[in-house]
Amino acid sequence: MISREKISDLLQSTTFDREVTVMGWVRTFRNNQFIALNDGSCMGNLQVVVDFNNTDDAILKRINTGAAIKATGQLVESLGKGQTVEVKATSVEILGDSDPEKFPLQPKKHSLEFLREIAHLRFRTNTFNAVFKLRHALAFAIHQFFNERGFVYMHTPIITASDAEGAGEMFKVTTLDLDNPPKTENGAINYAEDFFGRATNLTVSGQLEGELAAMAFGQIYTFGPTFRAENSNTTRHLAEFWMMEPEIAFADLEDNMNLAEDMLKFVIKYALENCKEELEFLNNRLLEEEKQKPQQERSELSLIEKLNFCLSNDFERITYTEAINILKASKPNQKKQFKYLIDSWGADLQSEHERYLVEKHFKKPVILTDYPKDIKSFYMRLNDDGKTVAAMDILFPGIGEIVGGSQREERLDILKERMVEMHVPQDELSWYLDTRRFGSAPHAGFGLGFERLVLFVSGMTNIRDVIAFPRFPKSAEF
Amino acid sequence: MISREKISDLLQSTTFDREVTVMGWVRTFRNNQFIALNDGSCMGNLQVVVDFNNTDDAILKRINTGAAIKATGQLVESLGKGQTVEVKATSVEILGDSDPEKFPLQPKKHSLEFLREIAHLRFRTNTFNAVFKLRHALAFAIHQFFNERGFVYMHTPIITASDAEGAGEMFKVTTLDLDNPPKTENGAINYAEDFFGRATNLTVSGQLEGELAAMAFGQIYTFGPTFRAENSNTTRHLAEFWMMEPEIAFADLEDNMNLAEDMLKFVIKYALENCKEELEFLNNRLLEEEKQKPQQERSELSLIEKLNFCLSNDFERITYTEAINILKASKPNQKKQFKYLIDSWGADLQSEHERYLVEKHFKKPVILTDYPKDIKSFYMRLNDDGKTVAAMDILFPGIGEIVGGSQREERLDILKERMVEMHVPQDELSWYLDTRRFGSAPHAGFGLGFERLVLFVSGMTNIRDVIAFPRFPKSAEF
Repeated sequence: MISREKISDLLQSTTFDREVTVMGWVRTFRNNQFIALNDGSCMGNLQVVVDFNNTDDAILKRINTGAAIKATGQLVESLGKGQTVEVKATSVEILGDSDPEKFPLQPKKHSLEFLREIAHLRFRTNTFNAVFKLRHALAFAIHQFFNERGFVYMHTPIITASDAEGAGEMFKVTTLDLDNPPKTENGAINYAEDFFGRATNLTVSGQLEGELAAMAFGQIYTFGPTFRAENSNTTRHLAEFWMMEPEIAFADLEDNMNLAEDMLKFVIKYALENCKEELEFLNNRLLEEEKQKPQQERSELSLIEKLNFCLSNDFERITYTEAINILKASKPNQKKQFKYLIDSWGADLQSEHERYLVEKHFKKPVILTDYPKDIKSFYMRLNDDGKTVAAMDILFPGIGEIVGGSQREERLDILKERMVEMHVPQDELSWYLDTRRFGSAPHAGFGLGFERLVLFVSGMTNIRDVIAFPRFPKSAEF
Repeated sequence: MISREKISDLLQSTTFDREVTVMGWVRTFRNNQFIALNDGSCMGNLQVVVDFNNTDDAILKRINTGAAIKATGQLVESLGKGQTVEVKATSVEILGDSDPEKFPLQPKKHSLEFLREIAHLRFRTNTFNAVFKLRHALAFAIHQFFNERGFVYMHTPIITASDAEGAGEMFKVTTLDLDNPPKTENGAINYAEDFFGRATNLTVSGQLEGELAAMAFGQIYTFGPTFRAENSNTTRHLAEFWMMEPEIAFADLEDNMNLAEDMLKFVIKYALENCKEELEFLNNRLLEEEKQKPQQERSELSLIEKLNFCLSNDFERITYTEAINILKASKPNQKKQFKYLIDSWGADLQSEHERYLVEKHFKKPVILTDYPKDIKSFYMRLNDDGKTVAAMDILFPGIGEIVGGSQREERLDILKERMVEMHVPQDELSWYLDTRRFGSAPHAGFGLGFERLVLFVSGMTNIRDVIAFPRFPKSAEF
């Protein structure tokens, strides 16, 4: 057994003058005397004071940034600035060296672009320590929120033979020998010989399977990886990302909006309460970054102010039709500043329109509802007007769509009609239709892109910086 | 907004003679009067008493098993046997019909085999309600255990270009047109044109990436899907399953064993405390099932007794070498009853040997350590004897291996030698070797097959019954 104390505990300790052993990675080593030691348990470093007169020169030379060390000594109140405790080391042992000529992380500010290239080491910086602690806290908060409310966590399948969105762009999964695949008599690939006896893909959503479970447990949620084989090289898209999808039986669109708003507020509040150190760091990081920008491009609110603002205000709820009217009359539309001008009902909203509504017009999160049926999925419930569906998208400042959901079409005949209209094959989804054949009931659900939530709460701007090892076109490193 | 009360709340209610609205699925309807209604919030059904004199015949005929209904009426103390409360309905509305000629679930015992065919509906049975509630509770307990101890939850990549185990049998992931793939000049498939610019697979483990994070945060865990393209049609294997992998820095094999034992006991205790109703049901289900077996094949302990036994006893910890000696001298080896006889050190243990140790010899969970290096992975730490590695497998009764782990080889030179010996390409894992180049430190970790844990705690016997939509050779249904 290896015995050590965590730095997070020591920094909060109030019992002094006792011997402690700590292990961690050297962040800096000043004056041959002061080690800033970090063990990942918190953002703060512990100051370890080396008795350099009684320490081997050979050891002193190996106390470099990035090296792992073990230090034993007295925990004492610190007289120095910037810390309340320190360890007066009686022994320092090198666990693992770090060649200063080769270790890529030096005690200076590195660009996020550079750190992305060394994603396997970037966790050792303050920024990524904070981001991934926050990501952890948000994931835990999601589980806690749903567990407290009696939802059942479902693991829906990753490999699937169905296409939930009816929207292509999926990754194929196969064990066939691609150099020499088995063929059918007419020369096509013979998927009957593939592992699953048919063509399979990586899932784009667990919703359809989630609905099956909701129609038994009443309330369920999924939280797992989903995939899009889209050739998008943007700061908001990933080929592999985590999605959380609750589904509730005996619920309509309003229940769905309430659930989504409650959940978002719960997890943001949880982060504010449980990640104070991390959020303060990210808050200040963002303030520093904004100083580089011209005055008018800076945010009106700091990161923490923005999060608190979200908690203390109701999300604005408007219909798509109302949104179109606002956008039509808006200055950027009148002055033709939008790239895509809004001239009529039915237009799909672009990112520029969503941002205008959220960031300029309402200046708070907005829930848009009741979209035209033609721009939404087949499973969304047709409204009585016959032309809109009971959909909802939640738009967040700086992020755009963070949640997309709907009341589901529970009426078998209408669902089938919509599938015909939208060319969704019914035979492949016979199991899905069974929920409408046997004990159908009103139900609703939504999907939350987890990385977009982490982006929003962390104040980071590139989605590749909030997932450990991002997957995007031409990149599957690590 | 749709207003209803959950049956779980009503069954525990102590305020009566108030009007309530419930929604759920009809389990049974007796004497044109008594509906057993289930809404998934708990295993128990609520009795809804229909006033059949004042209810339309047309409605009464539609109250069939599987139908979804809404009932409003007075919540009263029940005089009948088997329940403490009931609802005297003043109105019953059919939300969704269920044709009794077609609905596959009838109020009788169905075989697990049959239910597996209709996995999209099996959640509506008591057995699967219990199993998936339990699965939820175990997943939540895992998150709670690690969160309380300051571990960081990492989402390691699903699509990967590396093979963590160096052991083949992976699913390929591609967006190439398989009917007409791009070729290089020498006729091979040109993966440079694939989505990620190289050949990629579905991950078999997040361990290697987990190690990267542990060497920054000190303590991390993963919990996500992993994949094996093995052609195994057994009751213990799946092509897609969930795995939980903690990784701890500044830790050795003993720390690792302690963590695994603490974690397993924590989650089992959590289930016993939070899933009383479900475990009692599964306990009785198993007792019934065992009655069909001859006396000598029945378990000595009931399910709940077995779980409590696990909590109150230390796991037996022995080395591989000790295990070999026990097995060599064992009756089934002497009498040549083992299929694979143990005659010398170095043999890989088979399921029959593991079961003998756990179920016959020690009669409790066993942690086997220090396996021969040749039968274990390259990343396991070489012991001083030069022939064993600091590995550990935890064996559970009825399950076999539930946890596999090791102290990791933190010494760069020895790790590289092991990679050469075991033909693991070093250039592809350069990022992994960086953890040993820069601030290496002793560390350890393990993997827990989540479905095997659910199997053990639920007392189910086929792994396909503890995951919602199992993936196995020739099957990717739903």
